[in-house]
Amino acid sequence: MRAKITSVSNPRIKQLVRLRKRSQRDALQLILIDGIRELQRALDAQVVIKELFVCPELVQDYQEPETAALIEKQLKDKAVVYEVTESIFNKIGFGERKEGVLAVGEIKKKDLAQVELSKNPCILVVEDVEKPGNLGAILRTCDGAGIDAVFICQNRTDIYNPNVIRASLGTVFTNQVIACTNTEAQDFLQDRQIRVVAATPEAECIYTKVNLKDPVAVVVGREDKGLSEQWMKIASEHVRIPMKGQADSLNVSVSTGLLLYETLRQREN
Amino acid sequence: MRAKITSVSNPRIKQLVRLRKRSQRDALQLILIDGIRELQRALDAQVVIKELFVCPELVQDYQEPETAALIEKQLKDKAVVYEVTESIFNKIGFGERKEGVLAVGEIKKKDLAQVELSKNPCILVVEDVEKPGNLGAILRTCDGAGIDAVFICQNRTDIYNPNVIRASLGTVFTNQVIACTNTEAQDFLQDRQIRVVAATPEAECIYTKVNLKDPVAVVVGREDKGLSEQWMKIASEHVRIPMKGQADSLNVSVSTGLLLYETLRQREN
Repeated sequence: MRAKITSVSNPRIKQLVRLRKRSQRDALQLILIDGIRELQRALDAQVVIKELFVCPELVQDYQEPETAALIEKQLKDKAVVYEVTESIFNKIGFGERKEGVLAVGEIKKKDLAQVELSKNPCILVVEDVEKPGNLGAILRTCDGAGIDAVFICQNRTDIYNPNVIRASLGTVFTNQVIACTNTEAQDFLQDRQIRVVAATPEAECIYTKVNLKDPVAVVVGREDKGLSEQWMKIASEHVRIPMKGQADSLNVSVSTGLLLYETLRQREN
Repeated sequence: MRAKITSVSNPRIKQLVRLRKRSQRDALQLILIDGIRELQRALDAQVVIKELFVCPELVQDYQEPETAALIEKQLKDKAVVYEVTESIFNKIGFGERKEGVLAVGEIKKKDLAQVELSKNPCILVVEDVEKPGNLGAILRTCDGAGIDAVFICQNRTDIYNPNVIRASLGTVFTNQVIACTNTEAQDFLQDRQIRVVAATPEAECIYTKVNLKDPVAVVVGREDKGLSEQWMKIASEHVRIPMKGQADSLNVSVSTGLLLYETLRQREN
């Protein structure tokens, strides 16, 4: 049984709009999850869903009405389900794909003590990347490349920013993504004797020429300023991506993708 | 001598806002170029600049006031220079970086007949990518990887969309970027006997296992639907990127980056 909401001034709708702010998410320990795959992955990762907002017209228009119905069934007796109009959904959804489902879930924090590593781990450390779209694309790439864990350090961008969740296609839930400080991440890596490889345009060594077969943490920095001294110093190797043209760098999600898939290439060859 | 504009209702300002629409750009054959590096690369590529809008406060705040001054000097006697307030610039600029310079330039179309190739060319064909940010990041990567030329086919997104120019850091001007149809691109490649490698999640072969050392055109498709039959059929090889996790694809700018830099890796090893 769905409760119907027909007015944008409904307090539940106002609450959703407020949750776009990090301060509100932090205060209430709640997050917004928009999209079918994103919500399915949150459920797979046992994220507790409190409320589900469904727009039947948009669900029908999108390619997966069965998955949406399945999600709603899974949430029966667990979450309050609201039915909203298309104009309301256009106000509460974000991004370009409107798939007709949006949920409010509880933040489920993971910390470093919980991280499980494979025998030959590859970890990505992201220091201070700013744009949610970039961070989300990086998480999606970590999922694709089968990275063990991702440490998001000194995060100016909340890993639970709704646009990070969206751009990651929900892999922020299913992968080991940990927000921590630089020092915590470095202690973790040193305790386990995992080599640190830092990506920086000033390096002499090209990323394909360095050994990425053994346990490694690849560290990438923020879009404009690159890595801090704290990472540059601890790294056993600095690597760069060849730049053959006019621009002096790539988009950070592209350069991170190159580094992670090079790790995979070396390990599978 | 700069003319000062102090009101957002000034007709020049209204014109700038209108130029964000593709129909207006096509009708007037004019484009918007926002940002220091973007404008510098447009000038390097002999794009004719008609008007320059400068916000002195933002130019000072940004890291390169000397470059901005140099650009203005280059445009002396060539373009009309306007000085605008910060609130006006916030209305006319886009993206997150506000560097305090924005220009109106003439569209300078390149066509296939003008394309010059190296002895061992690598061409990227982009079929129908939609998001300007993705297309811009792809062009920036083509610049980095030293790709000979980029063919943008069946373009739902105008290559002169201001956000494409911005996300490409202006490399859309300095590289050989051609908007054309699928058929025109295929004729070009067949005439020159350039092998076509199509990227598709359904392929059996992994992209690092195929020969990319010899003349090649790598073809990537739109974010949701992938490549059309027209490209799938003509391709001599289909390749995929390994996906080790939950998601079934990467962001298109990341996957394109992997393919292009694999070409470079094979050629430089």
